[in-house]
Amino acid sequence: MNTLIRIAKQGTITDEFRELAKIEGLSPEKIRDRIASGRIVIARNVVRKEKVKTTGIGYGLRTKVNVNVGTSEYVCNLNMEIEKVKIALKYGADTVMDLSVGGDLNEIRRTLMRCSEPLPLGTVPIYQVFVEACRKRGGGAYFTIDDLLNTIELHLKDGVDFMTLHASLTKDLIVKAIKSERIIPIVSRGGDMIAGWVLHNDDENPLWKYFDNILEMFAQYDAVISLGDALRPGAIHDAHDELHIAELLNTARLVKRAREYGVQVIVEGPGHIPLNEIIWDVKLMKKLTRGAPYYVLGPLPTDIAAPYDHVASAIGAALAAAAGADFLCYLTPAEHLSIPTPEQVKEGLIAHKIAAHVADIVKYGGRVANWDLELSKYRNELDWKSMITKLMNPEDAWKVYTQFGEPKGKPCTMCGNYCPVLMFKQQSQKYLKERGKITFHE
Amino acid sequence: MNTLIRIAKQGTITDEFRELAKIEGLSPEKIRDRIASGRIVIARNVVRKEKVKTTGIGYGLRTKVNVNVGTSEYVCNLNMEIEKVKIALKYGADTVMDLSVGGDLNEIRRTLMRCSEPLPLGTVPIYQVFVEACRKRGGGAYFTIDDLLNTIELHLKDGVDFMTLHASLTKDLIVKAIKSERIIPIVSRGGDMIAGWVLHNDDENPLWKYFDNILEMFAQYDAVISLGDALRPGAIHDAHDELHIAELLNTARLVKRAREYGVQVIVEGPGHIPLNEIIWDVKLMKKLTRGAPYYVLGPLPTDIAAPYDHVASAIGAALAAAAGADFLCYLTPAEHLSIPTPEQVKEGLIAHKIAAHVADIVKYGGRVANWDLELSKYRNELDWKSMITKLMNPEDAWKVYTQFGEPKGKPCTMCGNYCPVLMFKQQSQKYLKERGKITFHE
Repeated sequence: MNTLIRIAKQGTITDEFRELAKIEGLSPEKIRDRIASGRIVIARNVVRKEKVKTTGIGYGLRTKVNVNVGTSEYVCNLNMEIEKVKIALKYGADTVMDLSVGGDLNEIRRTLMRCSEPLPLGTVPIYQVFVEACRKRGGGAYFTIDDLLNTIELHLKDGVDFMTLHASLTKDLIVKAIKSERIIPIVSRGGDMIAGWVLHNDDENPLWKYFDNILEMFAQYDAVISLGDALRPGAIHDAHDELHIAELLNTARLVKRAREYGVQVIVEGPGHIPLNEIIWDVKLMKKLTRGAPYYVLGPLPTDIAAPYDHVASAIGAALAAAAGADFLCYLTPAEHLSIPTPEQVKEGLIAHKIAAHVADIVKYGGRVANWDLELSKYRNELDWKSMITKLMNPEDAWKVYTQFGEPKGKPCTMCGNYCPVLMFKQQSQKYLKERGKITFHE
Repeated sequence: MNTLIRIAKQGTITDEFRELAKIEGLSPEKIRDRIASGRIVIARNVVRKEKVKTTGIGYGLRTKVNVNVGTSEYVCNLNMEIEKVKIALKYGADTVMDLSVGGDLNEIRRTLMRCSEPLPLGTVPIYQVFVEACRKRGGGAYFTIDDLLNTIELHLKDGVDFMTLHASLTKDLIVKAIKSERIIPIVSRGGDMIAGWVLHNDDENPLWKYFDNILEMFAQYDAVISLGDALRPGAIHDAHDELHIAELLNTARLVKRAREYGVQVIVEGPGHIPLNEIIWDVKLMKKLTRGAPYYVLGPLPTDIAAPYDHVASAIGAALAAAAGADFLCYLTPAEHLSIPTPEQVKEGLIAHKIAAHVADIVKYGGRVANWDLELSKYRNELDWKSMITKLMNPEDAWKVYTQFGEPKGKPCTMCGNYCPVLMFKQQSQKYLKERGKITFHE
């Protein structure tokens, strides 16, 4: 299979590269070169690539935002998950991940994939492997290597565009985690499923052991591997400890191997880390992986914010993305407490869209900040309708603008006729008329 | 009057210094020295200091959060404003500012002051001066110097603890603003009221001109001056332009003068500035003012976020405070659109409390992060009741935790029995029992 990386390495510029270049405002040559070197990926699977819009993740591209959806054991309501996908589409998510662990997982995945088109869909196949082992074999750790590889292949055949694989979680790290003084040793659900298997079977992590076989499968579908960070800190106290960095070292080795196979790969990041460790976390990861796209969950710069973890996460995410992270996994107000409602999905997504834009202003300057500029010009004209139309969420903005009734005059209900924008315009017009001959150096 | 600064300069350690030292976990000597040098202020007015809790703002102290309340011309409902003050008290605001411009301003201020005890109260006296000139003299710019000084004195007599004075906005800067290419020349309501007076009367800003007289008044009550930034950028495009920095230079001169008079002073900051300009903005301000406490409004790192400006502001505020800003003025989801509702006051306050804590972890490490540590230990025990009790807002956290019914088992509705915390505990206990002799270097 001639994968995107292999094609790019040959120097060819495909229509897909051209399209991405156009979307992102970069030259097709830059896109090609960065795909060749693994600094940009295109999240898609050959079996349904015409149904998915060209979505690039990586260096020089707009920061992307992922929305997680999916059923749980306790709350398994496919209609509610479909509702969340609709919200993801409405409010501008770039990708959707199905993290379901309750109900008929194949049916749910296929349904959510259809509903989320044209967005790329991601999954964590170990969830299905583990859940089905519980159901069919009486325990999550009883799955076989074939169960694992077959499920990954099933997801690839179905057209899943990217998959989280906790392949860097080697047995020695799991044992170290058990004996560590971490506050919370493992907070990754998929990582812990692997840990359960490894400990039960006293064998190496099969995703690590059979990584070459997995790469061959991914190369066939030219889908993207997202290397999960099973040992990401789940408390700021645990940030950047030996476990965290050791797993990143393993990840960097797998990134190198994936590129050799021509398989696109991105790397997942923390987690809970203090604000002052975010910038160098991104720099370290980029250095070790030679610029692989970085997919961060948060980072959360405090543990105490629930049910406002979407705000805490937006703080960390903005700084991480400004420092070079490429892809933000949203968190909702329900993080650490519950499966989210559709309304919470919306709140989480918008907070992270704001974080991504804040970061893109830093990364790309005027190319991105023109949005702010245009909006602020309307703001200076007190042209509320045009201004609100340009906001990220015009519908809710209009509701807030009119929450005490639609203002009668030009100003809003905050300042009324003492509106500084209105007053200054009147004052300065009067001044310029009466006294204001403009001279350059005044 | 022997003001706090003068007492501190004499080397005396008062009970107030001792109390603040105890609250903040610093030595009384450090408190004294930093008050003497102007790097810490205590926000209070001698006429009612026993009713106000000792609230320090500045270097080495926990980052504080202010809540703005107040009526507008269009929405003038004192009961709603009282409701907002109650929310400020309930959710842990450190100070309250009354920004009313509608209704009986003296009555409203006195009522809100009583309701907000024991928090320090701030005002912007030019609002009242201007509003009353509109009502009594037929135009905001018709106020006299006496009107201005008398209103400031009235607020001081009433016991207002800190007041925003836009004293740095000199006439030359106002004329420059008119002729500038800024997207939005002035977004400060109080600053614009001064600009209106200056342009109408073709005279210098009276707060600048009579600053020495004002300092004498403040020294009598030993209250705090907050130097307003009338030319703060109202669009990221306008950040750190000549106007912005020129006003800061004026401010730095006034800070010096206030210290000579023994008057406590803090400095207000932006506004809309890109994320990558926040850290050096704080450093520059601290350098120019020789470490005056910095009171930031946001900063907002994008213009497009309304009605989620509380999230955008939390991003900027966390970074600013981590870089050294001392005092955060909250923004609500209604910013740029409307006077806020009580619910929006709550959302804004909590977002900024999170930002302050995120920053304090950076500033003070373990002393602050012990909160996170304790909470994460409960999280690792799946002790939901203890964990939720420790969160910033336990009431809402419990609602989210039980939003699909109270979970029956130990895990929450997100992961159910696939909870990694639960599973890893079982897996590692089993491992340690069967195979896990702990040796140091494994």
